[in-house]
Amino acid sequence: MNREIMAGVDLGGTKILAGLFDDRGQMLGKRLIPTEAVRGLEAVLKRMTGLIAELKGRHAPEDKLRGVVVGAPGPLNGETGLVYEAPNLKWRDVPLREMLQEILQVPVWVDNDGNLAALGEYTYGYPQEYRMLLYLTVSTGIGGGIIIDGEVYRGIDGGAGEFGHMTIVPEGPVCSCGNRGCLEALASGTAVARAAREEVSRGRMAALQEVVKGCTEKIDARLVAELAAAGDGEAVHLMEEAIGYLGIGAANLVNLFNPQAIVIGGGVSGYRGLLRGVEQVVKERSYSSLSRRLKILPARLGSEAGLMGCLALAGRKIKCGVSGRPFGMPAD
Amino acid sequence: MNREIMAGVDLGGTKILAGLFDDRGQMLGKRLIPTEAVRGLEAVLKRMTGLIAELKGRHAPEDKLRGVVVGAPGPLNGETGLVYEAPNLKWRDVPLREMLQEILQVPVWVDNDGNLAALGEYTYGYPQEYRMLLYLTVSTGIGGGIIIDGEVYRGIDGGAGEFGHMTIVPEGPVCSCGNRGCLEALASGTAVARAAREEVSRGRMAALQEVVKGCTEKIDARLVAELAAAGDGEAVHLMEEAIGYLGIGAANLVNLFNPQAIVIGGGVSGYRGLLRGVEQVVKERSYSSLSRRLKILPARLGSEAGLMGCLALAGRKIKCGVSGRPFGMPAD
Repeated sequence: MNREIMAGVDLGGTKILAGLFDDRGQMLGKRLIPTEAVRGLEAVLKRMTGLIAELKGRHAPEDKLRGVVVGAPGPLNGETGLVYEAPNLKWRDVPLREMLQEILQVPVWVDNDGNLAALGEYTYGYPQEYRMLLYLTVSTGIGGGIIIDGEVYRGIDGGAGEFGHMTIVPEGPVCSCGNRGCLEALASGTAVARAAREEVSRGRMAALQEVVKGCTEKIDARLVAELAAAGDGEAVHLMEEAIGYLGIGAANLVNLFNPQAIVIGGGVSGYRGLLRGVEQVVKERSYSSLSRRLKILPARLGSEAGLMGCLALAGRKIKCGVSGRPFGMPAD
Repeated sequence: MNREIMAGVDLGGTKILAGLFDDRGQMLGKRLIPTEAVRGLEAVLKRMTGLIAELKGRHAPEDKLRGVVVGAPGPLNGETGLVYEAPNLKWRDVPLREMLQEILQVPVWVDNDGNLAALGEYTYGYPQEYRMLLYLTVSTGIGGGIIIDGEVYRGIDGGAGEFGHMTIVPEGPVCSCGNRGCLEALASGTAVARAAREEVSRGRMAALQEVVKGCTEKIDARLVAELAAAGDGEAVHLMEEAIGYLGIGAANLVNLFNPQAIVIGGGVSGYRGLLRGVEQVVKERSYSSLSRRLKILPARLGSEAGLMGCLALAGRKIKCGVSGRPFGMPAD
């Protein structure tokens, strides 16, 4: 075959999703594995490169790997691929691009996972519809990305768009970043799970206790959301609290960026009523002149937003073979 | 003489500052008068246009007024000059550009006062030093402006940069915008004065009581700042509380925009220790990778930042006579 291919890797605090794409942007295969961040940096790198090798072996053994794009959490330098801080992975100043290039021996580009997901939704989710788009992702952590006039806005060090680390409650719970009362510490999956565990430890949330049978470690946001969806009042209350904070965060983004659209994705965002709840708070808390034309939309690419963002970035970085056309674009 | 001149007007909640500039950017004259916003829209317009006429009559009676640039508070549309909401003036959907053009019979441009002050500091305060600069102004209200890559970032409706209306304390005091716990409701001059009045009504702040002799209406942020500077413990506490909130607001801006510099201006910003206090909180609350290269700087243009921004905008809007050079640029 000898096609040109690229690999995208969406590296999260709990999961790694990798995908292989041919030079026209067709996905050849993908796979999701646990990150196992506790095993440390070297182990995570091995899991990433091993996954790429496995996918290539299975789906494209004869093809030429032109490059790898990695979405990593936390603020990082998109030029050098230095990850400044990734609290969920316990990384600090990790030269991710360099380390991966050394192992893989192909060009590697690293960008913030939120930036790439924003680029994915902008390019493939709502193609060309919103030139000023903010992407807000709510899963283990809370991240985001900023598209201004069709380009990722990265700030001066490449670290802009850390939506999860707005302080919303000055004396609120401690966040993984070291600050207090960050949006992430109040409304992420981790925060919902922690709040639920606290309730259980106080003898509340009988329905949740019944499900986990005393093993509070089993409590996660998905369980709480499922109970809430089934009508459990205490679970509904926890979800509504988180949604309220998300709404405050979104309202702040509206008053600061005055975007055309806020696209909300991530594992927790599928909870029914989340979007409408956020919309309600945005209406109450931001300037009506800025919220009246605003669209608050569900991510269309679901858990693949980051991966599709890797492809979109490859299109900007890799020129194909003799033709020189951007990677992922049709041949003609 | 028959020079070409322009007028800039910085319209605030309490004061109107107007200035006259010749086509090389020399200031010919300026004057500050109270806004008297309570007298209503028509009266404020008359005060603005009357002030321009007065300045022209005194400083440039023979010269040709090429245009007027107005900085107005609140989110507005920079193209049409429609002021959506200006809570401090109690304005809503005011077609300011149209109304002023009708009276003045010269071209008028309207922009957000924060945007213009940002442009002023970017252009004349710290010329060309910081391509990604945020301007944060703390006076009666709290506003701001965003410079990205040397241009004002306005958002999709022209309303971006409402730094004063980030929610910092979800259940905090009611803000003039209708929301609760906005930065402006916690750390503006108005907020400091209100907090001081509350303290006095509880029998506290003996030093302040002595100064105002029972007339609590005399209490303003300047008085509190003066007492604090003189070492009054209770006044120091109020100022530090406000500075703490400002620091949280600034830390949020760092995590969202990752700017090169935050320039802080406005009447309250002159308080000694304010910049260092803000810097301290930013270090504690934002990603260190984003704050370590960040500069937090005093506005260099003081109360003239907005006015100089009017001149900077005129340079982008008005081409001079036969030569066609931008207004405010030297002739050669």
